[in-house]
Amino acid sequence: MWMAELSARSGFSVPTIKYYLREGLLPAGEATGATRAAYDDSHVRRLRLIRALTEVAGLRLETVRQVLHGIDHAGSWHEAVGSAHTRLGASADDDPPPTQASLARVDGMLARQRWQLEPGHPQAVQLARALDALDGVGHPVSDRLLDLYAAAMRPIAAHEVLSVLEIADTDVEASVEAAVVGTLLQEPLLLGIRRIAQENVSRRLEEESAGR
Amino acid sequence: MWMAELSARSGFSVPTIKYYLREGLLPAGEATGATRAAYDDSHVRRLRLIRALTEVAGLRLETVRQVLHGIDHAGSWHEAVGSAHTRLGASADDDPPPTQASLARVDGMLARQRWQLEPGHPQAVQLARALDALDGVGHPVSDRLLDLYAAAMRPIAAHEVLSVLEIADTDVEASVEAAVVGTLLQEPLLLGIRRIAQENVSRRLEEESAGR
Repeated sequence: MWMAELSARSGFSVPTIKYYLREGLLPAGEATGATRAAYDDSHVRRLRLIRALTEVAGLRLETVRQVLHGIDHAGSWHEAVGSAHTRLGASADDDPPPTQASLARVDGMLARQRWQLEPGHPQAVQLARALDALDGVGHPVSDRLLDLYAAAMRPIAAHEVLSVLEIADTDVEASVEAAVVGTLLQEPLLLGIRRIAQENVSRRLEEESAGR
Repeated sequence: MWMAELSARSGFSVPTIKYYLREGLLPAGEATGATRAAYDDSHVRRLRLIRALTEVAGLRLETVRQVLHGIDHAGSWHEAVGSAHTRLGASADDDPPPTQASLARVDGMLARQRWQLEPGHPQAVQLARALDALDGVGHPVSDRLLDLYAAAMRPIAAHEVLSVLEIADTDVEASVEAAVVGTLLQEPLLLGIRRIAQENVSRRLEEESAGR
């Protein structure tokens, strides 16, 4: 397809698409002349992914570039997903390092769950920082809560990983995209459902106490 | 305590505390003269909550004001938490309304879980919008995933609500604060643990497939 059709199908303006081409976020089309290039479905899909990462997940363009680079240069599906996850979890360099106490609590949770993570993995650092933030506002959480969260996330993660892995047999890139998009864009679902569940627990408790 | 001690104990500068007093985010101290007022632990706690909501949860001051108003004017604990949750979930007025199809899917999930939510509740609207966002990027999720999320959030919500309710017998305000802070600031924990779980599922699947 030509640029005009790519624009129509992706919903991006021609200048924006040209900007992504110049920035290397979108691979060049197949040159069919001095000033013309042909694009295909992979370009439409890549633009959809860029839209998801920028507009819906709210990532900065530099982070989007790193996520796309991870997808494009991975040796295996696990590596591609891992690389994307690592970059999604990376925080700004000027964030303060987490306390040793919180890092040790994260290690403890990993050991109890028999989960592995390379030492200094960004996800472990992020988690330790989140524990520090709760300590800092005087609302520390228990190890029991961490274990409850881990137990709850186990079947969810298995379902999520298996469903994107199903696509991998036919289309590795689409599968990694689904993993990255799923990780990010399904977060609001999980959090929204948690709040609705909390509201219903709270309502039931109040009804029970009113009925007493 | 005087203003200087309130500043030292809360970590906020005197001008910032005076700003929150003028804006009505912080209740006035007890006047002890024409220009002096005495503050107590409730002021320290309120300032800690403001810090948590602004700096850690990233809420705008106007939203913080609404959350605090909900806490201060609630008739019951359930109402206070519900009011805070509702405001936390409220999105900008200029966000487009969700599709009827997604609202119907949210209603379906609520019915299957025997959960109740007032019609048009912001949490239901937010959830429907999140479904629309996933549809829009070509990654729709199944009702089965929603049910999996709901099943996973059930024990978590029960544990979370019961642990903040324990405080309510002695200090209602602290309990509502703990509910709001817990809802917001524990989100990064849950999401971080989900990513670590995904990474471990993915790693185990790769090891199994390499071992074949």
